[in-house]
This record gives sequence, structure tokens and C-alpha cells, in this order.
Amino acid sequence: MKLKAMYSFLNTDLNIVEKELETAIQSNYPLLSEASLHLLQAGGKRIRPVFVLLAGKFGNYNIERMKHIAVALELIHMSSLVHDDVIDDAELRRGKKTIKAKWSNRFAMYTGDYIFARSLELMTKFNQPLIHQILAHTLVEVCRGEIEQISDKYRFDQNLRCYLRRIKRKTALLIAVSCQLGALAAEAPKEIHERLYLFGYYVGMSFQITDDILDFIGTEEQLGKPAGSDLLQGNITLPVFFAMEDEKVKAKITQITPETPPDEMKEIISLIKQTGAIEKSYAVSDRYLQKAFAVLEQLPKNKARNTFYNIAKYIGKRKF
Amino acid sequence: MKLKAMYSFLNTDLNIVEKELETAIQSNYPLLSEASLHLLQAGGKRIRPVFVLLAGKFGNYNIERMKHIAVALELIHMSSLVHDDVIDDAELRRGKKTIKAKWSNRFAMYTGDYIFARSLELMTKFNQPLIHQILAHTLVEVCRGEIEQISDKYRFDQNLRCYLRRIKRKTALLIAVSCQLGALAAEAPKEIHERLYLFGYYVGMSFQITDDILDFIGTEEQLGKPAGSDLLQGNITLPVFFAMEDEKVKAKITQITPETPPDEMKEIISLIKQTGAIEKSYAVSDRYLQKAFAVLEQLPKNKARNTFYNIAKYIGKRKF
Repeated sequence: MKLKAMYSFLNTDLNIVEKELETAIQSNYPLLSEASLHLLQAGGKRIRPVFVLLAGKFGNYNIERMKHIAVALELIHMSSLVHDDVIDDAELRRGKKTIKAKWSNRFAMYTGDYIFARSLELMTKFNQPLIHQILAHTLVEVCRGEIEQISDKYRFDQNLRCYLRRIKRKTALLIAVSCQLGALAAEAPKEIHERLYLFGYYVGMSFQITDDILDFIGTEEQLGKPAGSDLLQGNITLPVFFAMEDEKVKAKITQITPETPPDEMKEIISLIKQTGAIEKSYAVSDRYLQKAFAVLEQLPKNKARNTFYNIAKYIGKRKF
Repeated sequence: MKLKAMYSFLNTDLNIVEKELETAIQSNYPLLSEASLHLLQAGGKRIRPVFVLLAGKFGNYNIERMKHIAVALELIHMSSLVHDDVIDDAELRRGKKTIKAKWSNRFAMYTGDYIFARSLELMTKFNQPLIHQILAHTLVEVCRGEIEQISDKYRFDQNLRCYLRRIKRKTALLIAVSCQLGALAAEAPKEIHERLYLFGYYVGMSFQITDDILDFIGTEEQLGKPAGSDLLQGNITLPVFFAMEDEKVKAKITQITPETPPDEMKEIISLIKQTGAIEKSYAVSDRYLQKAFAVLEQLPKNKARNTFYNIAKYIGKRKF
């Protein structure tokens, strides 16, 4: 089953969200509108809005209220993508042209800031202090995750806990909070929005681990960049930790620098695959997925719960 | 009279704000703490916290409440400074080492994001929706100002209104909002916080115009960069508008590119000064100052009003 088919019953509401997204990034500056629209049309799975809406189904669902949370969280995600593209080394550009590549670092940064500020403006529609506290705390943690990712680069002696904390902050938290704020906007009770947070957290962890696996096993065409790019950039991900349990492979990995030539990288990636690191990583991803399913069991049975189950299964097992 | 002496009666409270600022940017990451502290210690006049506290004196002043607004607004200002330092052209670095220069573009950007997120966390202590609406709207406008500044560069045909709107968004708004939110945090009534906003706006406009004048008449030592740097970077400021009224000077100015050699810039700056553009710009700055004073007259008489008067006078007339 395709991902989009799983939540086709949300289509009307997702179209409303999509329209709101377009409205939110409108501005009087052709350049800014162009850049933001470029980003919006680059698409993405809109997984955060989907999670927000599904979580809202566990409370008093009202799309006119829900849409603001959905749009705000997608804008926050978008702004983090733009900031991710602000780089120092032009060679690190992704497969396609980024805002930074098309315009400039400075412009990409302010476009990110602008999109983010617009999301805060939307959030002021909610007067529940808890919503703002959760969101603000999450933003601090996400920034910490980004900074950790920079300072942990090429630190081959870091432990697994570093990695798990980093992907929690970088990815899982925003998914967890999409679920929780969706539930809160629909005035769901504490035991519901806290469980949904936990569900989102587990799914997010599984999602990022799968992403980190795909960086090794995907083709250049699927990834839009050569396999092993994360490692070449110094990001130590789960498969690398498992591969480094083999001392010989570890000796090779710890020699990696941004200048390691593609041939040598190909050889190292092949070695990493031979250690069984990919399978072990999938097992960890799966463990998070099982935890996500267990949390779902404790939630009221409804269509949204069923959909959450299918999406989680898809995300954890996806092949690209 | 020195600036600091004007508000010495706030010293105890400003020390509390300073301590809170240090606490707010603490983190578990040595690199991040170092970068943030580097920025904090670079100092600045803390004019926003001073304005917040003074505005609070027009309501129910409680430093334990006021300090959060003061710290949040200073953090927002600081984060905008870090982002300002994210540049594409390394030559454009300022007199001293910036976070971007000491570390990297990417690190500077996330440090800015982190400091900003921390300020949002502090703001969640306030449950007044109006405070959040004003702040969020201001942030959007500030970003617009930054983006305008990029897209208006070297556009010598822009009109004066472009300039005034840009400095409103870039500078005056945050000062205006420091006054307004200070008053709101102290639960001052509408006619008070709206007047304080207007006062801050006029002072901010005067402040930025003076700043733009100083870029022409300051020495390299005072400015930390060669005089006329704004113009060399393509920022069309008020003295430039006045100077371009002279067709001969305009012909020279519109030839400026980032590659214009220092000798030629010196000649152009000298020409600009001869047109009387500096004096005319001071007159505009003064007009804003007079408007600020007129607003003050409509506020209740107290020590804070007196201090606002002295600070405004100082800011508008300052020589460096």
C-alpha cells in the first residue's frame, strides 16, 4: 500500500493545510516568495501535518483549529531544511539546487528565519500555555541537536548514546511534538497527548535510523548524492557504530576525512555492509517500531489509530 | 553625561538581567557556551533591557517578571547579530572576530537559532496573548527587513520610502516593542503601552539614521571598519539619498560595486560630505527625536520618563 493511500480520508483537510501553507509564505518580496515557494514545491511527505491531523482525531477535531498547528509545524520543519543548506563548503550541496545554492548563504538564512517567524505568528492563535512551552522547549532541543551534530563530526570515539540523543533532537522530537500538539489543539486529555508524544518519538527514532541505513544501501540515484555521504561528512550513524565493532573496519573508518576519495569510500562502505551492521541497525529500528505499536495499543481504537499503525510500519520498513 | 549614568538607578535590576542572560545561554556543550559567552561579553549597550525596564516603570513594575522580557529581547537582538555575521564573502568580516569567523557559517547560524529558541522559552512565562502576537509579528517584520536589505543592495534607483521601511523593520521595531512589551509585562493600560511603542519607534528611527551617518563620518578606529563600508556593501542609507540629489555625485555613486578600490571610495565619501548630505540626515534624525519627545510629553511624569528623555537625546546626537 502506498503511503498516501493510507490517509486518503484526510485528503480534503490536507488540501486545506496545503493552501494555508501557500498563504503563510506569501510576501511582498518576489525573491522571498519565489524562494519559499521553491521550497514548498520541493514537497516532502508532509508527514508532520498528517501526524498532527491524525492526533487531533483523538480529541475534538476541528480542521479550522488543527490547520494552524499543522502548518506551523511544517513551516518549522521547512525552515530547518533551509538552514541545513547553509554550508561553508560548496561541494556539499545536495542533488538539486538549494536556496543557498540558487541565491546565497545569507539569503537562505533569512528565508529560514522568515518562514520560522511566520510559524510563530500562526502559533499565537493558541492560548494554551502548555502548547507554547512544549514547542519552545522542543526548538531549544532541536538547535542543540544541530550543534551536537557539528561538534560530534569525525569524533569516532563518541558513544552510541551520543547518536541516539542526537537523532532524538534532530528528528524524533519534532515528530513526537507534532502528535502531542495535534492532540492538545484538539483538547485531548493528558494521558492521550502524552501517549501520542511517545508514539511519535518511537516512530521518529525508527524513521531516522532507517534514513541512516538508506544512506549506505541506497543508490546515488535514489539518494541524490553518493552512498555513504553522511559518513564522508563525518556523521557517525548507527551502521557505523556496529561496523566499528570490527577492529579492522574501525581502523579504516577512523581514517576518513572530507578528502577521502570516492573509490576509497566505496571500499569502506562495502566493508561496512559485510560486517552485518545494516541488519543490526534494522533490528534497532524495528525495536523502536515495536515500542511505537505497544503505545498505540493503549490508545482508543479508531480510524486514526489504525492509520498511525500503517504509517509507522511503512516508515520503519521503507526501502528508499 | 555618560549614557550609563543616566540609568544608574536601574543598576541593581540590570545586574539581575545580566545574570539571567548568562544563565539563559548556558548549555552542556562547551563549544556552544563558549560561542554564546563570546557574544554576550562582546557587550553592547543593553539598550533593549534598559528600555524594557524603564517602560515597566509606567505600570506594576516587578523585576522578577520584567527580567524575562528584558532577557528575551536582548537574546533576540543577539541572535540577529550572529545571523548578521553569516556571510558569503569572507572579506566582509567585521573589525573583530565573529562567531562565524572563529568557527563556521553553519555553527554561527545554529548558535543564533539556539539563542533565539532560548528567548522563546523565556517568553512562555507570559500568558498574555497580546505579548506573543506583538512579538511574533515583529519577528516576521524584522526578517522582512533583513531580506529587503539583501534584495535592495546596489539598487540605486530605490526611493526614500524603501530606506525608511527597511530601518523601521531592521532596527526601530525591536526598540519600539521593547518599550511596549515592558509596559505590557507590567500590565500598563493600552494608552500607555501604545504610546511607549511610538516613543521607541521614533527613537529607533533616529538611532539608525545616526548610525548610518556615523558610517560616513567616523574614523576607521571608531567604526572597526573603513568609513563608507555600508555603501561599499551596497546599502543605500539616508546620506546617500541626499547626496544623489546632486547629479554629478550620483553618477559616481551608482558606479560603486563590491570591487570599488579604497582610494575611489574615499573620494566618493568626501564628495558625499561636500553635498551637505550629512547635515540634512542629521536634520531628519532630529525630526524623529522631536516626535519622540512629543510622545513622552503625553506620558505620566516620573523618573523613567525623564530618563527616556535623556537617553533619547543622547542616542540622537551621539558622535560615535
